[in-house]
Amino acid sequence: MSEHPLDPVFHPRAVALVGISSSASGRGASFLHALLDQQYEQRRPLYLVNPRATEIEGLPCFPTLLAIPGPVDHVISLIPRDGARALVEQCVAKGVRSLHFFTAGFTESGEAAMAEAERALAALARAGGVRVLGPNCMGLYVPDERLAFGIGMPREPGDVMGISQSGANAQEIVSGLAPRGVRFSKVVSFGNGSDIAAAELFDYAASDPQTAVVTAYLEGVPDGRALLGALRRCAAVKPTIILKGGYTAAGARAASSHTGSLAGPGALFDALCRQAGALRVDTLEELHDAAIVVSTAARHVRGRRAVLVGGGGGFSVLAADALARHGLDLPELPDTTRAALRPWVPIAGNSIRNPVDAGFIGAGAARREALEQVTTIAALTPGYDVTIVATGGGPPRPAAGERAPDPDDDDPAEPPLERTRRQVALLASLQERGGRPVLLVRRERADADLAAALDVTAYAAGVAAFASIPRAARALELLLDWRRARAGLPELL
Amino acid sequence: MSEHPLDPVFHPRAVALVGISSSASGRGASFLHALLDQQYEQRRPLYLVNPRATEIEGLPCFPTLLAIPGPVDHVISLIPRDGARALVEQCVAKGVRSLHFFTAGFTESGEAAMAEAERALAALARAGGVRVLGPNCMGLYVPDERLAFGIGMPREPGDVMGISQSGANAQEIVSGLAPRGVRFSKVVSFGNGSDIAAAELFDYAASDPQTAVVTAYLEGVPDGRALLGALRRCAAVKPTIILKGGYTAAGARAASSHTGSLAGPGALFDALCRQAGALRVDTLEELHDAAIVVSTAARHVRGRRAVLVGGGGGFSVLAADALARHGLDLPELPDTTRAALRPWVPIAGNSIRNPVDAGFIGAGAARREALEQVTTIAALTPGYDVTIVATGGGPPRPAAGERAPDPDDDDPAEPPLERTRRQVALLASLQERGGRPVLLVRRERADADLAAALDVTAYAAGVAAFASIPRAARALELLLDWRRARAGLPELL
Repeated sequence: MSEHPLDPVFHPRAVALVGISSSASGRGASFLHALLDQQYEQRRPLYLVNPRATEIEGLPCFPTLLAIPGPVDHVISLIPRDGARALVEQCVAKGVRSLHFFTAGFTESGEAAMAEAERALAALARAGGVRVLGPNCMGLYVPDERLAFGIGMPREPGDVMGISQSGANAQEIVSGLAPRGVRFSKVVSFGNGSDIAAAELFDYAASDPQTAVVTAYLEGVPDGRALLGALRRCAAVKPTIILKGGYTAAGARAASSHTGSLAGPGALFDALCRQAGALRVDTLEELHDAAIVVSTAARHVRGRRAVLVGGGGGFSVLAADALARHGLDLPELPDTTRAALRPWVPIAGNSIRNPVDAGFIGAGAARREALEQVTTIAALTPGYDVTIVATGGGPPRPAAGERAPDPDDDDPAEPPLERTRRQVALLASLQERGGRPVLLVRRERADADLAAALDVTAYAAGVAAFASIPRAARALELLLDWRRARAGLPELL
Repeated sequence: MSEHPLDPVFHPRAVALVGISSSASGRGASFLHALLDQQYEQRRPLYLVNPRATEIEGLPCFPTLLAIPGPVDHVISLIPRDGARALVEQCVAKGVRSLHFFTAGFTESGEAAMAEAERALAALARAGGVRVLGPNCMGLYVPDERLAFGIGMPREPGDVMGISQSGANAQEIVSGLAPRGVRFSKVVSFGNGSDIAAAELFDYAASDPQTAVVTAYLEGVPDGRALLGALRRCAAVKPTIILKGGYTAAGARAASSHTGSLAGPGALFDALCRQAGALRVDTLEELHDAAIVVSTAARHVRGRRAVLVGGGGGFSVLAADALARHGLDLPELPDTTRAALRPWVPIAGNSIRNPVDAGFIGAGAARREALEQVTTIAALTPGYDVTIVATGGGPPRPAAGERAPDPDDDDPAEPPLERTRRQVALLASLQERGGRPVLLVRRERADADLAAALDVTAYAAGVAAFASIPRAARALELLLDWRRARAGLPELL
């Protein structure tokens, strides 16, 4: 595969941070600490530029970019707007390949002169061989290259790409998905997009061998035709999830002062996504949940017939309502399945029709066996498109030594993390054996650590996990609507 | 005020737990431990009944109910179904005032004979002066009387009542609201409702001086006319929030095997709520958020004109979209306000039109002051119905001693809990001074303890706090739609 024009941007061999304060405070410190958190400086040269210091936090500091002895590929600029032009000239002189302007105050200021200054800067840089990210953006998170724009971003790479006009929402893509086990190929915050912008990034995503799934937050669409073309190429080969900021009139007004975008009306953007075959979502939460669906076995769900196992009576009733509201059916289980379930489920207070209400199944180790049997019988019953399994849900598990294990808990003697692994292993094996995806809805809200462990363990096993039935149902609805709208386009999943 | 017929049920002077296992395991142990967790036994007699033990966990155990020396007002039954009739007879003989059947297997089994047995039990008990809760329910949480059906339920009483046909959803009402600062007058899980059921409980709620807000989860409506009458009386005088399980056909089927209810079609239930002036919600999350709205100053919101402060650019754009989707407007701030804001907000990357984007306002202590000024100016600008303030949102705050405070953080030197108290005190004072409700949207998702502290502190100050803009927006939409639908009914809020 030939090299994409943006490849050098994602693979810089040395980085300079220009305009960091000599006390290493504020935004400059954030960028520096994000890079140190990735241990960038242990692999490649990391230079700081500030005329009033020779060393900041143990790293060499130079008075100007041109004073740096070695080559610099990527520059992160924190300098005020007025120095931007001089910095571009220095970058050209230094042979820099990409310049990331965190520096803001251009088009998004609403001043025509500043919009013009932004265009001129980008043109000057491009003419000199320097690609520009921004201005007004957070830049790059590339775990493979140890680049990051926030502390605590995972060091391991993955196959989900993020493209965002907003720095905060680039961060939300990472902070919403990383705790659920997702890892990233690249996340790019491109701000005003004076040079590198959405269309080229979708084009890159389409060809990037490390990217399997694309998520994006966009505000404006300066060149709809170019975007449609790139989006079409990308969405043809990879699930591409798009959240549009400025979808409503009020949001569009906010967007114009954010990234200087003239956000188009939502209906036009809808049409663009539909033509391209992209999956449009309305909120960050939907973006996160859709990314989980398309990067796990859940992507293979092809119809609306669901079987639901777990939870008590009241949970089952509301679950059935939520699934129905999102277009999913819960067809009754066949007689043979109900006969197989009957020995494991006491008649009283239970349903074995669908949902299978597991609220009052035995207690302790007997409950554990019964739940495994019931889940297995349901997940292997043919004629459904997806199995949804709810875990936990009782009151908080008391700490060891306290009285009162929860009788809804299957085998309270089993350590929670072992239970988590056992549950996920069962669901993963049932995905294989049953020939259809299994979704997990975890109800361990009282125990954040356990909830996180379930999410991550499930994701690693290819099982999509959600915090609630309504969210799982909405994610499946998004998937199925998207699949239907893609009729005629390449079958991706 | 004369005594309500249900008063004695909520104020028992002694409790007996009948059918607890001698090893204090399973469901019986859960009920026992819930009572011990409330220290019930330190205030009133708590008796256990099991013929195979004389003492369980240090409490005296008797072979039968009749063998208990003192009077017993309330009995919690965990015995199997077959012994239910004999227990009712004993309760009558003992002069028991209320009998809570956790015992299940009656109408909800789907067997006609069991439905008939349930009716006969209830009739027998009523004839003998014993009121029945259930069968198939969790019974009572009355913090004033130290009664509870789950561990960890708050001991302090409050003014929100819960009425639930489902035990799990009664628990969800508590576990969803208690961490947000809400406290309860009474929560009743009434299961099959063979005697005490929804209509009588709404009637009680209407007259209960300790109850200011009513939340309810209902499945079936066996007697629509009686329910409508009671609901009308209740909703006329107190905000009454209702979640209907079995709203869809699939949910209705699940409900019939849960509490034996023939759930009516959703549209009929809608009409019933509208006629009665109740606030109908679709999910537990909406029930929780609506309860927060009507029990804080947020209940006074009377129109759709919102001003939003806080968050960075991408946050503001999506916030504006979410508010618009839920019918709220963000009218531009007047020129005088924008002039007042300008000194505090750098032009670059910001909007001072509405939303007021606070993403890039200064850093450290200067940021703290600027944020306070900006929030104050916005909240005191006349012409709006509600002020919405977003906090936090940056990456996780590093632990003390680690590098890199978040530059989005106002004054990282300030201890988080102090910051929380300061933020809430400001918002509470702005509610007073501005003459309109202030809503807080907290974005401290990375720090669960801090998020919980913000929720609880805000609630205590009468400030409604939400985990996201879409949830705050939806809660306001529910409130405003409810207010409009109540035209002609007494003005409650």
